[in-house]
Amino acid sequence: MSGRVKSETELIQTYLAPLAQGMPGAFGLADDAALLATEPGTDLVITSDPIIAGVHFFASDKADDIAWKALAVNMSDLAAKGAKPLAYMLTLALPEPPETSWMAAFAQGLRAAQEAFGCQLIGGDTDMTPGPLSIGVTAIGQLPAGKFVRRHGAKAGDHVFVTGTIGDAALGLAIHRDPKRFGDILTDADRCLLIDRYLRPRPRLGLAEALRAHASATLDISDGFLKDLARLSGNLGIEVRLDALPLSSAVRAVLADDAAVADAILGGGDDYELLIAVPPSEIEAFSRGARLSGIGVSDAGVLEAGRPIAVIASDGTRIEPSRSGYDHFSR
Amino acid sequence: MSGRVKSETELIQTYLAPLAQGMPGAFGLADDAALLATEPGTDLVITSDPIIAGVHFFASDKADDIAWKALAVNMSDLAAKGAKPLAYMLTLALPEPPETSWMAAFAQGLRAAQEAFGCQLIGGDTDMTPGPLSIGVTAIGQLPAGKFVRRHGAKAGDHVFVTGTIGDAALGLAIHRDPKRFGDILTDADRCLLIDRYLRPRPRLGLAEALRAHASATLDISDGFLKDLARLSGNLGIEVRLDALPLSSAVRAVLADDAAVADAILGGGDDYELLIAVPPSEIEAFSRGARLSGIGVSDAGVLEAGRPIAVIASDGTRIEPSRSGYDHFSR
Repeated sequence: MSGRVKSETELIQTYLAPLAQGMPGAFGLADDAALLATEPGTDLVITSDPIIAGVHFFASDKADDIAWKALAVNMSDLAAKGAKPLAYMLTLALPEPPETSWMAAFAQGLRAAQEAFGCQLIGGDTDMTPGPLSIGVTAIGQLPAGKFVRRHGAKAGDHVFVTGTIGDAALGLAIHRDPKRFGDILTDADRCLLIDRYLRPRPRLGLAEALRAHASATLDISDGFLKDLARLSGNLGIEVRLDALPLSSAVRAVLADDAAVADAILGGGDDYELLIAVPPSEIEAFSRGARLSGIGVSDAGVLEAGRPIAVIASDGTRIEPSRSGYDHFSR
Repeated sequence: MSGRVKSETELIQTYLAPLAQGMPGAFGLADDAALLATEPGTDLVITSDPIIAGVHFFASDKADDIAWKALAVNMSDLAAKGAKPLAYMLTLALPEPPETSWMAAFAQGLRAAQEAFGCQLIGGDTDMTPGPLSIGVTAIGQLPAGKFVRRHGAKAGDHVFVTGTIGDAALGLAIHRDPKRFGDILTDADRCLLIDRYLRPRPRLGLAEALRAHASATLDISDGFLKDLARLSGNLGIEVRLDALPLSSAVRAVLADDAAVADAILGGGDDYELLIAVPPSEIEAFSRGARLSGIGVSDAGVLEAGRPIAVIASDGTRIEPSRSGYDHFSR
């Protein structure tokens, strides 16, 4: 189990081909391309989000966590469109031939993610790079024809729902960077939970049916709540009360200690929750669908014409977030 | 036209969104994912081949050439499977915000390639990277259901055909690296042609129908003629006479001057020609189909059981190539 992977063939056949087992169109990862048979009455949804060491994760992160994240961030896009995952392509750019133990853990992380999300590897490519480890995933999902849920489709009067809780990943990243962070406020268990929320996003795939049936627009929160809320809102505005936002008890505790943390909660990335616009007439049915899926959703406010996006703190003051989410050009 | 691209939004909306115009499922590159409507009676073919500066191209190459190559190497995989290009996803990892002139040239190269290959951009992602410029393309093609042409399917007795000419790109790369190379043997026009063959591969998409109807197996020559011939041959062998291989007059001239160049011709990558196995009963129909497509094909020999792969020079000596093609793990 020690030493390095010796060839591209060994890497593909030993570590990756087992992840494609049972997918006839993957041809054991031994062909130039993958085949995807299509089903009448369905559309395909495709998304490509690479992750790069030093940008989206730390090179020192555990291999299985890195693999999970590479797949999860793409599945989150499928989740936002109401699609069911089918398959994915994987391109690895490696700075050096990996240790066999690292590669085994990476494949194990992919397997766990595949099983959690219900999809399989069908193809890809492996290269050596003079740069950092980069993992490219192109995910392919399926939905009934004509049922794709757009990002732009929200109307004035629609309520904006948020899944799960926001801000956990931003604080988890802070603790991941500095293991002592928030040590005086949170228990170790809480701090581990926050790190896990950062390392292992859980795409909200279970909401697909409710989204397709009842949402006017959705997107996933990857670049920060406020930035993605602005994307969903388009020309509309919304007043969000901080108290109405779904926050975990850990995030509430940190926020109670230091109100400035609101910036990180509202602007930090990596939540991978969904923002969902729902017309008033659909709210009851949507809420029922969400309950059936077991995924918590919170009503964050109502979209209105002619007003900006604003966040109001408990004491009624207006929070002016000092950063508006992650932009890949301004680091 | 001077200065740098200022934001991710500017890069996408100004330079990339025009490349997606007319593709309804691209949503102007403003959604989280792309939609691909499927056609009854068809299968999809998917391939992902990234190119990385310093590995697959030089960072100093012209932006339009880099863009062309990124798309062409993926289209070559579709060509080998007998598929018709439909669409592609593009992921850019940029070491810094690009110059607007660079980005405009890059988009122009993509447009030229799109028009040549008959496909359009439908989605993707842009990141800043601490590493070299990397361009990830996932190409999606279409073919009649059940007509995918496998890499592994050749039988003893099948003839192996090669499209176009091989070795041009390997010598073109040598000249691209050292502009004086072969200056005493070749005209400047010939040397430019070889460089162009390296920089701007022409995927053999026109053969799709003939491949689907008559080939038992195909793949494209990306890692070197001999390495890819071994992949096509599987457990079979073949004796190839160097004289029977399709070589351009420029490559013949260099080879006549220095027989050792055979190594580069047989082992160098980047040809992006096709290797095609054709059963004897199909040769006449296949050749007719190839003639109709306007793509030259040459019969390189016959696959046989119980023999190795061997190349025989004009004087009857056996060439033992000192390198067996490009392996991404052994550089």
